[in-house]
Amino acid sequence: MGLVLPGDLKPSIDHQTTEQNIVVFQGDSITDANRDRAHYYANQVRGMGHGYVSQIVAEMLGAEPHKDWQCYNRGISGNKVYQLADRWEIDCLALKPDILSILIGVNDYWHMINGRYAGTPQIYEGDYRALLTRTKAALPGVKLILGEPFAVAGGSAIDDRWKDFDTYREIARQLADEFGAAFIPYHDIFAQALKQAPVAYWCPDGVHPSTAGAHLMKKAWLEAFAAI
Amino acid sequence: MGLVLPGDLKPSIDHQTTEQNIVVFQGDSITDANRDRAHYYANQVRGMGHGYVSQIVAEMLGAEPHKDWQCYNRGISGNKVYQLADRWEIDCLALKPDILSILIGVNDYWHMINGRYAGTPQIYEGDYRALLTRTKAALPGVKLILGEPFAVAGGSAIDDRWKDFDTYREIARQLADEFGAAFIPYHDIFAQALKQAPVAYWCPDGVHPSTAGAHLMKKAWLEAFAAI
Repeated sequence: MGLVLPGDLKPSIDHQTTEQNIVVFQGDSITDANRDRAHYYANQVRGMGHGYVSQIVAEMLGAEPHKDWQCYNRGISGNKVYQLADRWEIDCLALKPDILSILIGVNDYWHMINGRYAGTPQIYEGDYRALLTRTKAALPGVKLILGEPFAVAGGSAIDDRWKDFDTYREIARQLADEFGAAFIPYHDIFAQALKQAPVAYWCPDGVHPSTAGAHLMKKAWLEAFAAI
Repeated sequence: MGLVLPGDLKPSIDHQTTEQNIVVFQGDSITDANRDRAHYYANQVRGMGHGYVSQIVAEMLGAEPHKDWQCYNRGISGNKVYQLADRWEIDCLALKPDILSILIGVNDYWHMINGRYAGTPQIYEGDYRALLTRTKAALPGVKLILGEPFAVAGGSAIDDRWKDFDTYREIARQLADEFGAAFIPYHDIFAQALKQAPVAYWCPDGVHPSTAGAHLMKKAWLEAFAAI
């Protein structure tokens, strides 16, 4: 250990100069998946929850030790787009993601039909576009992965009031196209999976996937990720 | 719904007559991985913990929906072989596993060298053989998967006192051979992984794997499982 001159000092983490690959997962309860929010540093297993994020991160870290992935789960249960916006500075931009994965929209619809939120498709689209615009302005090089919000047919929480939810799915798809993001068609993936096993196997309430359902999401996410 | 005659009634779960494929994971803290023990029914995600078991179960359930896997994590932190034996009836035999995965031994050594347990290799071998003999007597058709106990070189808990741990690894390997079990050489797998990334990446204290380390275990387990 030689003498360290001031000019040699640098922050222990410097996202600008290291070759860390920072991945941030954003969303609602599907992303949150009961993560322990006290474990908020990169790659902390209890901070990844029990959902698709934990499965993705295990695969990324396990299979690619040379990549120095730094993964953060910042999903929060119940969130709609405007609530992501409220915490975007600390829970997204400050982390300086190289890859940003967002899955949001089911509560924008669900909380509207159950009377807890005065949402409309126009608000969802406007809020989401504003969030993505802000993100691209702050992080011009970020790679975006947008997930299709889903409501799996036959799930215990899904009834006739969900008939207009397709509009929200379509908005997410169009925004992905508009912002050059990868898009993961989760809704269609679950619809296909119903040919193999019933909804109770993949996503009992139609909103929150089982471990098996999360595995489908992981596979699709990693495929989309490999292609960007 | 027609009239149900008494003769048509059967228990909702009947391990003898259904085609369920029951998988039980047994072991210590590496298997436990902070599972929520209140979630003790099959396939409950919070009951799988944050370790290799959760990763294996996600893959099995997600990739093979037609198999009707019923997976239980019954690892308990700190356990040695005799403690598995103490709870074997309810935490193994009563579940009637078709596949039984056991990873045990690190505490039989660790608690001996730190003065908490008067263990010897002979006790480990004798206790483990008795447990397997009892298991085979109760469940003649069970398929066994035994994991090699491991202590990853350089881990913060691993020091010179671990130099005789190889004996325990060898005992586990010999017992696997003796009982016709699949054997997973976890110790060697971690030793190989150190060529790719340091011990802190795979298994910081040398005993408890990171998510990345658990991924290596998952891969090896599924390969062994596919071969039995």
